[in-house]
Amino acid sequence: MSDLAPLFLPAGFRFGATTAGLKASGRPDFAIIAADQPASAAALFTANKVSAAPLAIDKIHLGMSGGLVSLVLINAGNANCAAGEAGYNAAKAVCLAAAETFHCPPEQTFPSSTGIIGVPLPAEKLIAKLPGLKSSIGPTHEHFAALAQAIMTTDLVEKTAFARIELPVADGEAPRCIHIAGVCKGSGMIHPQLVPHAALHATMLVYLLTDAAIEPATLQTLLNASANKSFNCISVDGDTSTNDTVLLLASGASGVQIAAPDSNSASNPTLYENFAAALDQVTSSLAKQIVADGEGVTHVVELQIKGAASDADALRIAKSIAHSPLVKTAWAGADPNWGRLVAAIGYSGAAIDPERIDIRFGDLAICENGGRAAEYNEKAAHEYISQPEFTIHIDLHQGEGSCTFWTTDLTHQYVSINADYST
Amino acid sequence: MSDLAPLFLPAGFRFGATTAGLKASGRPDFAIIAADQPASAAALFTANKVSAAPLAIDKIHLGMSGGLVSLVLINAGNANCAAGEAGYNAAKAVCLAAAETFHCPPEQTFPSSTGIIGVPLPAEKLIAKLPGLKSSIGPTHEHFAALAQAIMTTDLVEKTAFARIELPVADGEAPRCIHIAGVCKGSGMIHPQLVPHAALHATMLVYLLTDAAIEPATLQTLLNASANKSFNCISVDGDTSTNDTVLLLASGASGVQIAAPDSNSASNPTLYENFAAALDQVTSSLAKQIVADGEGVTHVVELQIKGAASDADALRIAKSIAHSPLVKTAWAGADPNWGRLVAAIGYSGAAIDPERIDIRFGDLAICENGGRAAEYNEKAAHEYISQPEFTIHIDLHQGEGSCTFWTTDLTHQYVSINADYST
Repeated sequence: MSDLAPLFLPAGFRFGATTAGLKASGRPDFAIIAADQPASAAALFTANKVSAAPLAIDKIHLGMSGGLVSLVLINAGNANCAAGEAGYNAAKAVCLAAAETFHCPPEQTFPSSTGIIGVPLPAEKLIAKLPGLKSSIGPTHEHFAALAQAIMTTDLVEKTAFARIELPVADGEAPRCIHIAGVCKGSGMIHPQLVPHAALHATMLVYLLTDAAIEPATLQTLLNASANKSFNCISVDGDTSTNDTVLLLASGASGVQIAAPDSNSASNPTLYENFAAALDQVTSSLAKQIVADGEGVTHVVELQIKGAASDADALRIAKSIAHSPLVKTAWAGADPNWGRLVAAIGYSGAAIDPERIDIRFGDLAICENGGRAAEYNEKAAHEYISQPEFTIHIDLHQGEGSCTFWTTDLTHQYVSINADYST
Repeated sequence: MSDLAPLFLPAGFRFGATTAGLKASGRPDFAIIAADQPASAAALFTANKVSAAPLAIDKIHLGMSGGLVSLVLINAGNANCAAGEAGYNAAKAVCLAAAETFHCPPEQTFPSSTGIIGVPLPAEKLIAKLPGLKSSIGPTHEHFAALAQAIMTTDLVEKTAFARIELPVADGEAPRCIHIAGVCKGSGMIHPQLVPHAALHATMLVYLLTDAAIEPATLQTLLNASANKSFNCISVDGDTSTNDTVLLLASGASGVQIAAPDSNSASNPTLYENFAAALDQVTSSLAKQIVADGEGVTHVVELQIKGAASDADALRIAKSIAHSPLVKTAWAGADPNWGRLVAAIGYSGAAIDPERIDIRFGDLAICENGGRAAEYNEKAAHEYISQPEFTIHIDLHQGEGSCTFWTTDLTHQYVSINADYST
C-alpha cells in the first residue's frame, strides 16, 4: 500500500483536473484518473442505441487490452455524441496524445464525455492541456475533489462516496484495509439503463476505484449486481442518456486478492461478500446523491414497491410512477393527489388488481383496497410529503415481487434549466 | 330528418347542461345527450387497468342493451375512480334516476365522469338536477355549446367538430345530407390508449354523433379505425387516464343506411368510404384541438416519422419523443437542441441505425446521417420552432413504417396547473 494514499482513497491511483475551455462558464472541465500500474477494469454503458463516440472507443479498448485501464480521460461540456466521424476521430486523437504523454498503451485509455449532444469535440483544446495535467496529478483528497468538480455539468454539488474493509490481522500486526472510492456526476437525462458493455442510462458518469486485486471477470460480476440495485433503480426525468458509463477499476495496490466464491483460486467467501456489501454501499450512496442533485429537484422520493407479481413488475410500476409528469408535479406542490399514483400503476403494464392496491406515505394510510383509506387525512399527508425526502410504500398483493427505487419531483426549476440549455 | 335539426347537427339528439355543484369554480358541470330513439352505439375505453366506475357500468350496459344508448350522462369535477363500492353505487344511482326521469331502460344509459380521482361521487347532487335538465334540453347549437362547456375541466376552450356528407339526388329533389358532430374535453392526463370496450387514455371524453343509420358492429369498426389515426396518436403528458371514453352514436334520423362494404345487405361502398373519411375529419380535428388546449401548452408539434422498420416502431419513436421531458422543455424554450431528439430515438426501443437518422424542422435540414447537417443554421431552427405550431420530420431509413403524431411542449404553466390541483 502506497505511503501516499490518504485514509479513504484506494492506493494506486492519481487524479487531476484542469480547464480546457469546453464549459461556457469557464470552470474546470477536463479530468483524469491515472493508475500507477494498469488496473483491472469492469464497465457498464448506456442501453441507448445512440451512444457517444468515447463509449465506442471504450468498448474497443477494453477488448484489446484484456480489461486493463491505465488512464481515464473525462471531459465535461461536450458529449461528443451524434458528431459523426469527426467526433470519433477527436476522441481517438485525445487518447493517442494522452497515451504518449503518460507512457501507456493507447488501448489502456478510457475516454468519457458529458455535455451537449451534436457538437464535435475540440480535441486540440484537450490535447494542449495534457502536459500540464501530467505534472499536476496526485493521490490526495484535494486531487480527488478537483476531479469530482471538473466532471460536473448541471450538477450543483460534487458527488463522492467511500468504503473501507478492515482485514483480520494477527496480534501485533499493523491494521490492513482495502478501500473503495466512488465519484460521479449526473443531474438531468437521468434514467440509467445499464448493460454490460452495452446499457446504463442518463448522462451519468460513475468511476469506482479500489485497491483490492480482482480479475476483470469477477469485477464485472460484482459491478453488474451492484449497479442493478443502485444506478438502474433511479430516475430523474426518464431520459436515458447516450453517454452513461460506470467504470470500476481495481489497482491491486493493497496486495489483497478477492476472488469469486466459486472460482478455482483460493477464494475467501466472507471477504468477497464483505467487498460486495461495501461496493453496494458506495453505489447506492452515489445513486441517491445523483437523484438528490437532480435538475430542479425539491423532493427526493423513495418508492418501496412490494407484493408485485414479479420483481420486473415491481420495477415497471416504480418507473411508471417515476416518469409520470402528473405524479411528479403533484409532489412538487406537496399535493397528496394519490389518484395519480393509482392511474400510473394502472397503465404501467404490470399485472395488478385495482381493488387490492394499498398505498402508504411513510406510516400514513392513504389508499386501501384501491380506494381512499378510512383514516385518510389530507392535511397529514400534505405535511408528510412537504418534507424534502419521503417514502411511498405500495403493496399490490399479487406476489413476492419488490423493488426500491429513487426518484424526484418535477419543478418550475427543471423547466427553467432545460428550456434554455444550448442556446 | 327532424325540422328542428340545425345545419350542422345530426338529427335525433337533444342536449342539455346544468350546474350540480361538483366544480369548485361553480361552473356548469353536468351535461346530457338524449337520443329521441335508442341510438346504435360503439365505444372505446382506456387501456388503463385502473378504470373508473362509470366505465364498468358502460360496458355492462352496452352488453345488456345490445349496443343501444338513449341517454349519455356526463359530469365534470369528479372522476368517480378509485372510489370503491361507493363510487360504483353512486354512478348506478344516477343512471337509475335518469332512466326513470327520461323514461328509458336503465341499460340504455351511458355515464361518464372526469375530474379528481379518489373522491366518491355525490350522486344526490346530480339526481336533484335531472328534472330541470329534462325540461331544458333541446337540439340547437346553443344547447350543444352548453354541453361542450359543461364537460370541461382544465380545458380553456370548448372543442367541437362537424362534417356533412351530401347525398346524390335526382333533379328537382331536395338536397339530402347526413351529419357527424363531435364534442370532447381533455387537456391533462392526455395519452389515450384506446381499445374496444377496453383501451383509450388521458382523461379524454369524446362524443361523436351522426344521424346516419349504422348497426353497432359496423359503427365499432368505423370507430376503431378512426380512433387509431387520431386519439391514439396524441399525447400531452404521457399519462394514460383511468376515464378515457370515446362514444359514437348513430340515431338513424336521416333515414340513410350505411353498411360495411363486405356485408350481405345492399351496401354502398362509396357512401361507406365517404362516411369513414368524414368521421376521420371530425376525430382528427378533435384530437388536434385536445393537444392544442393541452395544459400549459405553448407549442403544438406534429411529428412525421417515416422510414421506420414498421408502423409500430414509428409509433414507438413518436411516443419516446413525445414523452421526453428534455425534448418537451427544449421546445418550450424554442431551443433547437436536436441531440435530445436523437437520444429519445435511441432509447425508444425501435430498430434504428444511429448513423442513418435524418431530421428536418419543417424544410430546414437539422441532422443528416445521425450528425449535424452541413447546412444546419441554429438561428433559423430557433425561429422555426418559435412558432406556436411546427412540424418535425424524422426519417430512419430502415423500412416503410410511418406515423403522424401530435404532441406538445412542457412549460412552467403545466407545472403550475398540476402542482396544485386538489389541495
